[in-house]
Amino acid sequence: MSYTFKIGLAGLGTVGISTLKRLVSMQSKLSDIAGHSVEVRAISARSRDKDRGIDLSGFKWYDDPVALAQSDDIDVFVELIGGDSGPAEESVFAALRAGKHVVTANKALIAKHGNSLARLAEEQDVALNFEAAVAGGIPAIKAVRESMTANAISRIYGILNGTCNYILTRMEDDGLSFSECLKDAQRLGYAEADPTFDVEGFDTAHKLTILTSLAFGTEIDSESILIEGITSISPADIAAADELGYRIKLLGVAKRTATGIEQRVHPTLVPKTSSIAQISGVTNAVVIDGDAIGSITLAGPGAGGDATASAVIADIVDLARGLAIKPLGRPADSLEPFSQSEIHAHEGGYYIRLRVNDMHGVFASIATRMAEQEISLESIVQHKKKSRFKAEDVPAGLDKSQDIILITYETTEERIGKAIEAINKDGHIVAAPQVIRIASGV
Amino acid sequence: MSYTFKIGLAGLGTVGISTLKRLVSMQSKLSDIAGHSVEVRAISARSRDKDRGIDLSGFKWYDDPVALAQSDDIDVFVELIGGDSGPAEESVFAALRAGKHVVTANKALIAKHGNSLARLAEEQDVALNFEAAVAGGIPAIKAVRESMTANAISRIYGILNGTCNYILTRMEDDGLSFSECLKDAQRLGYAEADPTFDVEGFDTAHKLTILTSLAFGTEIDSESILIEGITSISPADIAAADELGYRIKLLGVAKRTATGIEQRVHPTLVPKTSSIAQISGVTNAVVIDGDAIGSITLAGPGAGGDATASAVIADIVDLARGLAIKPLGRPADSLEPFSQSEIHAHEGGYYIRLRVNDMHGVFASIATRMAEQEISLESIVQHKKKSRFKAEDVPAGLDKSQDIILITYETTEERIGKAIEAINKDGHIVAAPQVIRIASGV
Repeated sequence: MSYTFKIGLAGLGTVGISTLKRLVSMQSKLSDIAGHSVEVRAISARSRDKDRGIDLSGFKWYDDPVALAQSDDIDVFVELIGGDSGPAEESVFAALRAGKHVVTANKALIAKHGNSLARLAEEQDVALNFEAAVAGGIPAIKAVRESMTANAISRIYGILNGTCNYILTRMEDDGLSFSECLKDAQRLGYAEADPTFDVEGFDTAHKLTILTSLAFGTEIDSESILIEGITSISPADIAAADELGYRIKLLGVAKRTATGIEQRVHPTLVPKTSSIAQISGVTNAVVIDGDAIGSITLAGPGAGGDATASAVIADIVDLARGLAIKPLGRPADSLEPFSQSEIHAHEGGYYIRLRVNDMHGVFASIATRMAEQEISLESIVQHKKKSRFKAEDVPAGLDKSQDIILITYETTEERIGKAIEAINKDGHIVAAPQVIRIASGV
Repeated sequence: MSYTFKIGLAGLGTVGISTLKRLVSMQSKLSDIAGHSVEVRAISARSRDKDRGIDLSGFKWYDDPVALAQSDDIDVFVELIGGDSGPAEESVFAALRAGKHVVTANKALIAKHGNSLARLAEEQDVALNFEAAVAGGIPAIKAVRESMTANAISRIYGILNGTCNYILTRMEDDGLSFSECLKDAQRLGYAEADPTFDVEGFDTAHKLTILTSLAFGTEIDSESILIEGITSISPADIAAADELGYRIKLLGVAKRTATGIEQRVHPTLVPKTSSIAQISGVTNAVVIDGDAIGSITLAGPGAGGDATASAVIADIVDLARGLAIKPLGRPADSLEPFSQSEIHAHEGGYYIRLRVNDMHGVFASIATRMAEQEISLESIVQHKKKSRFKAEDVPAGLDKSQDIILITYETTEERIGKAIEAINKDGHIVAAPQVIRIASGV
């Protein structure tokens, strides 16, 4: 027990404090597990004097995280600062260059700099662990990087953003609008004051690009990705999906196809009977389809100080135990360049909601446009708006528009695009069409 | 790439052949991942000449698995023979004594000899990996042993036997009896000709004792465990549970209580809305409750050659990559003795089905017996048997018995036992009472 594994921790926000408190309170258990002492030696944060409910006097203080990262006081540098540039980027690169292991919860950093960080870590023969960067406490990284090695993975997908899933769940349960649910999410601390990063799908995209690389042995590519958020989802969509046996979830999906890998984040209709449809509220889930295993699902809390700290500490303990692995699961030099399948080649079913004023002749016209693109329709539903009036009694000047919902059989994104363009030109519809992809094989 | 990690594989049944084929076909990918060559060098099985659909001539053949286990040809001995004694036991002990890593899918062996095998592996400074022994392809062992280290685990539970879950799912979906569903399971290859080991809960028990040890840092104790199988579950129970909002699942549960650890396997009522209730057919699931993470669920295939091979190969690749960990997650010497909480102290709700002939006065009598034990009833349902006759028209000589279903609020097993004893003595009931525990907090 003479050897001590020494931890330096930078960033004392919610996750940082959770991690620090737990490392201190569990020190004897962790040392037991590791077979030798595991100790936090030094810390760094923006303000030294802020009251964080924990006595920091026993740790060496660094104003500069880069100085901490390079310090001889530590074996592992734990980066919980956040952001894909500035102090987070500088200190992580500095730590690796100084031959320190790095543990980080920073998905933006890994999504942007993961390839070069992995290469650097390998050159320096140190580890770069980032379990907490994807799906919080769920061991998704470990599952893909270690448990699925015997599999050719065909697809990995998941609900990777608790904010969006909370909003969609509330919209479904309570029939509320997106903006009402967003406000609730903000009030409860599930959404930021500026929610763009979450609700526009960027957070999910960061996490997905990391999973894609691990699943397919490709370089992380956070440029080649389709990203659509949930702001356009209306109660009408939620209700229509429900009626047809679906829920709407924001999924991140990476899938191998004949023309490359699809890497996409968008609202998706999932059958209510699927396991992914059961994931409600702020819970996250990751599903991995492999040729040996079939399919496994991992579900749990995707955020929160303690759940994220759980993943951060598991990463630290792995290193304290002597488990170190190539950051992206195989030598960075052997990663293939990422090749995004063109989205117009995407194959699947589609949900289409069209708002029309006058039903006369519209069904026939829409059906013709679909037929021209060889798109078969599984169902057509005329979805009436709730109104105090019967259709024939609507006073002049009042909105008489109604929704038509189409569910297509499997077709391509290209055909759908052309059909929608033709429908648009026909002039029957009074609002932009809503088009949502339907998940298959979930 | 000059170093080669050399594999010896004993046992060429379904899992063995799946593992071997995959190791051969994936050799270049696995070498890529490991950073050096990974090769099967030698094999052993009962019959050399049986046609297994794969050319074995490239591997050194051993008639005796013990000789293979000790051979200089290998770095890791992969035991897929099965059984807790005989060649499996002898060869695994021999391999560890000879300083070879061991990978096994053998839950019976680990449940029985895990403590001494772990100790021996540590003495020899080699690894003993057994991911495939619990929940097939699902990385449950890795999740508990590595990903949950930051957590004080309060409970671990799961559906660990696909045969039982298939039978219970079919009983629910199709209203069939246990024996009809068992026959179907046997026809489909989901159940053995002698199904005792699965349907009586022993297989689940083996797996649970392993999870218990990893979750609580205790020695594996396969003696101190409550085991009840599913043979007594009738369509009447399934229907009554359904009506009350529950499904019946065979759960393995290990839970820390004030008086020790509960380690139990029994049919359990789970609310239909719970995530564990969604696990249908041969799928397995493991749920881990920890103080940092809250709760995570892992679900996937619990058996089958390829899914099990996936876990076996992940274990092998971990070793090829240089990841080796103490078999039971911490030094065997630091494991605490297992201390089973007495089952009479178990606290929870109960489902009780009582068959009575004459309803007159029975409700009052039963309610009195419950009240004497301070057991509060959440619901009392008179569950009529389907009959061609109205109650008053049943011909003399025909069975007029009816079921009364009680759902209790939380109480203790001891109180339930006393109440049932008193009800039995009162003489109203015409068949042995059916008592099923209800899961709480799932």
